[in-house]
Amino acid sequence: MAQEQIHRHNIGTLLRHVHLGGSVSRATLAERMGLNRSTIMALTSELGAAGLVREAPPTDTRRAGRPSLLVRARPDWAYVLAFDVAVDRLVAARVGLGGALLDRREAVRPRAGADLEHVVDVLAQFGRQLYEAAPPDSVCVGIGASYCGMIRPGDGMVRFGPDMGWVDQAFGAELSRRLGLGIPVRVGNEAHLGALAEQQRGAGIGFQNLLYLHGDVGVGGGIIVGGKLLDGDGGYGCELGHMVVNPYGGRPCGCGSHGCLEAEVGERALLDAAGRPADLWGRDALRAVVDDADRGDELAREALRRIGDWLGIGVANLINLFNPGMVIFGGMLRDVYPGAAPQVRHRIATNVLPVARERVRLSTSALGDDSTLVGAAELGFADLMADPLATLARTTAHA
Amino acid sequence: MAQEQIHRHNIGTLLRHVHLGGSVSRATLAERMGLNRSTIMALTSELGAAGLVREAPPTDTRRAGRPSLLVRARPDWAYVLAFDVAVDRLVAARVGLGGALLDRREAVRPRAGADLEHVVDVLAQFGRQLYEAAPPDSVCVGIGASYCGMIRPGDGMVRFGPDMGWVDQAFGAELSRRLGLGIPVRVGNEAHLGALAEQQRGAGIGFQNLLYLHGDVGVGGGIIVGGKLLDGDGGYGCELGHMVVNPYGGRPCGCGSHGCLEAEVGERALLDAAGRPADLWGRDALRAVVDDADRGDELAREALRRIGDWLGIGVANLINLFNPGMVIFGGMLRDVYPGAAPQVRHRIATNVLPVARERVRLSTSALGDDSTLVGAAELGFADLMADPLATLARTTAHA
Repeated sequence: MAQEQIHRHNIGTLLRHVHLGGSVSRATLAERMGLNRSTIMALTSELGAAGLVREAPPTDTRRAGRPSLLVRARPDWAYVLAFDVAVDRLVAARVGLGGALLDRREAVRPRAGADLEHVVDVLAQFGRQLYEAAPPDSVCVGIGASYCGMIRPGDGMVRFGPDMGWVDQAFGAELSRRLGLGIPVRVGNEAHLGALAEQQRGAGIGFQNLLYLHGDVGVGGGIIVGGKLLDGDGGYGCELGHMVVNPYGGRPCGCGSHGCLEAEVGERALLDAAGRPADLWGRDALRAVVDDADRGDELAREALRRIGDWLGIGVANLINLFNPGMVIFGGMLRDVYPGAAPQVRHRIATNVLPVARERVRLSTSALGDDSTLVGAAELGFADLMADPLATLARTTAHA
Repeated sequence: MAQEQIHRHNIGTLLRHVHLGGSVSRATLAERMGLNRSTIMALTSELGAAGLVREAPPTDTRRAGRPSLLVRARPDWAYVLAFDVAVDRLVAARVGLGGALLDRREAVRPRAGADLEHVVDVLAQFGRQLYEAAPPDSVCVGIGASYCGMIRPGDGMVRFGPDMGWVDQAFGAELSRRLGLGIPVRVGNEAHLGALAEQQRGAGIGFQNLLYLHGDVGVGGGIIVGGKLLDGDGGYGCELGHMVVNPYGGRPCGCGSHGCLEAEVGERALLDAAGRPADLWGRDALRAVVDDADRGDELAREALRRIGDWLGIGVANLINLFNPGMVIFGGMLRDVYPGAAPQVRHRIATNVLPVARERVRLSTSALGDDSTLVGAAELGFADLMADPLATLARTTAHA
C-alpha cells in the first residue's frame, strides 16, 4: 500500500465518519481511525478547504479539559441526486452531504408495461427539476439509483427486471445521458441498497453481519457480510427470494421454477391464502389482510401464520448460513412480519443450530419505504467517500 | 491507517505472496502489491534478515534486460504443526513455510465415543514426536487444527461437535497445554479450512467467491465471499448442511430437525437409498455404492440420482445467494459428485436465475482428503502472515 493510497483512504474514511455520524469531534475521529490528532487536523483542514466540512466548538462544554472541535458535514453545498424505481412508484430526491433529504418528487407507476423510455422520461424530468431548484452555488457530486431487479454493477445495466419484463436494458447509461449532467448514474438492486441504508442509517447500525429481506411483489435480499454487501462474482448474489424451500408441490414462481421462497411468501401467496380474489393486488390489498388479522379474522390470521412458516424456514436457513447479528424485514414484509413473527421465531428455534442463533435479533426496517431511496443516495455518495478531492474536482469541472 | 500498520500489512502481504506462490520475482511482487521496487527490496531484506526468505537469481535468463531476483520461502526453518480431527481419523503434520508437508502421523479414529482426553492424548503425542524430529535449528511459528464441528474462533472451544457428541469442550486450550510449546492452537471448522485450503492451494485458486461443500457423515460448508471466509458474528456461519430443503416429510436430521440438506444427501441417506443395511456405514460402504453405480447397478444409480437432486437443490440455492465463480465438492462428496452431477446441473439450470449462473464452475476438490489438513496448516501460519516479525520474535523466544 503506497502513501497516496493511504492518504486517499484516510481522508475518505474521515469524510464517511462525518457524513454518517452528523458531527464528530476530532478526538473521536482520532480514536476511531487509529490516527494521531495532528493527522486528523490536517485531513480535516483539507476537507474544509474543499468545502465539504466545517469545524465548530462543541455546544456541550461541561466536560473538563480543552474541548475537542466538532467536525460537521456542510449540508447545503455538496449533494447527490437519488432515484428509486420501485414496483409501485418512481421517486427522485436531492440529498445533501450528511444525509439530509433536501427536495423530493414522486409519481405513481403503473404495475405493468413500464418501458425504459417511460421510466427514464419521468426520472430525468424529476432530476432536472431538482437540479435546477438547487442553490446556484451548490454542486452535484454523484447520482445513485435503486431498481427492483438484477443490476450489472459497472454500468447500471438492468440484466433482469422480472416485474417490468426488462432484460438487458441500459437503464443507468440512458438515465445519465438524459440528465445531461456529465455524471454517471450508479445503479443498485433495491434490496441491496435497502440493506446498506439500514446498516448505515437504520435498524442495522453497528452490525457487521446482517440480513435484509425486502418484500414487494416478490422477495429480494441484501446481505451484509463483514461490513460489506455480499455481491458475488458478478454482483448478482443475495437472491434469497429464489431459495427453493418447497421443491415438490410448491407454488409456481415468476422465475419459472416452483417452491421458491418468494412464491411461498410473496404478495400473491398471502392474498391467495387469505382467500382474496385473483384480480386484487398491491400494497393496500395486502395491508387489508394484515388489518383483518389484527381485528381477529381467522382466515387472515391463518394466512399470516402460513406465510410466517415459510418465511421462518427461509430465515432459519439464512441464519445458519450467515450467523448474522440482525435480520431486518423491509418493504411489504414490514407489514407482514409482526403477524408472522411467532412462526418465524418457532422455525428459528427449531431449525437453526443453537450457537448460530445465540445473539441474533429481528426487526422491521427503521427507514420504512425510504430505505431503498436512502440506499440510492449513499450509492451516489460512494465515489466522493472513496476519493473526496478527485471526485469533487471532477464534478465541479462539469458544473 | 498509521505508518506502523502499513509496514506490517506490506511485509505480511509480501510473505504471503511468497508462501503461496513458491518463488516470486521482485518485479512481480512490485506489480502485485502496487509498490515500487525499492520498497520491495527493503521489505525482502527485512524478511531475509529474519530468516524467512531467500533471494536467488532466476534460472530462466532468456528474457532481455536485467533479470529480477526471485524471492523464495525458506522451507527448512520456520514451520507449523497442523492437526486434523476428522470423523474417521486423527492426523498430525509438520508443514514448512511455503506449504511443504515435511512429516506426518496418522491414526484411525473409532466413529463414536471419542472423548476430549483421548483425542488430545493422541494428537499431543503425535505433535511432540513431530516437534522432536524437526531439525534442531528450526522454529515452530504456529499451530493449527481442523475439527469436524462448530468452533469458537478466539480460543478454539468446540461449541458443538455432533459426530462425537461434544458440547463446549476446550479443545484448543487443552491441546495447547498438552503440547507445552507455549504457542496457542488455532482451531477451525473442517469445512471452513477446506474452503480456504482449496482457495489458496487447490481447485479454487484465483476465485474470490467460492463454495466448498464437505461431506463426511453430514455435510459442512466453507464459503469464501470477496476473498474472505464468511464467518458471521460468532464464527458460526456456513452451516449449509442444515439448510432445510424438504420441510414436510423430510428425513430426520442429527440436529433434531427434518429435511436438512445433510439429512437428504449425507452418508446415511445414500446408503438407505441404495438399500444397504442400517448397520453398514463409513467411507468404504459409500464407495461401494459409487462403484456399483459405475458398474451399472440400477439401484445404486437411482440412489445417486436421488441424492443428486437434493444436492442440486442445495447448490442452486447457494448459487442464487452467493453468485460464486466456483463450487467445490470435497470429503465424501468428492466420491458422490461425479455420479450425481447430471442432477446437480439440471437443478442449477432450473432453479438458478440465468445471470447468476453465467460463469459458475463446478469441481471436485483438488487437495482430496488433505484439504482440511492443509487448511489447518494455513491457519497455523495466519499469525506469521499477519505480523511476521513480531510473531517470529514471540515464537523463537519460546524455542
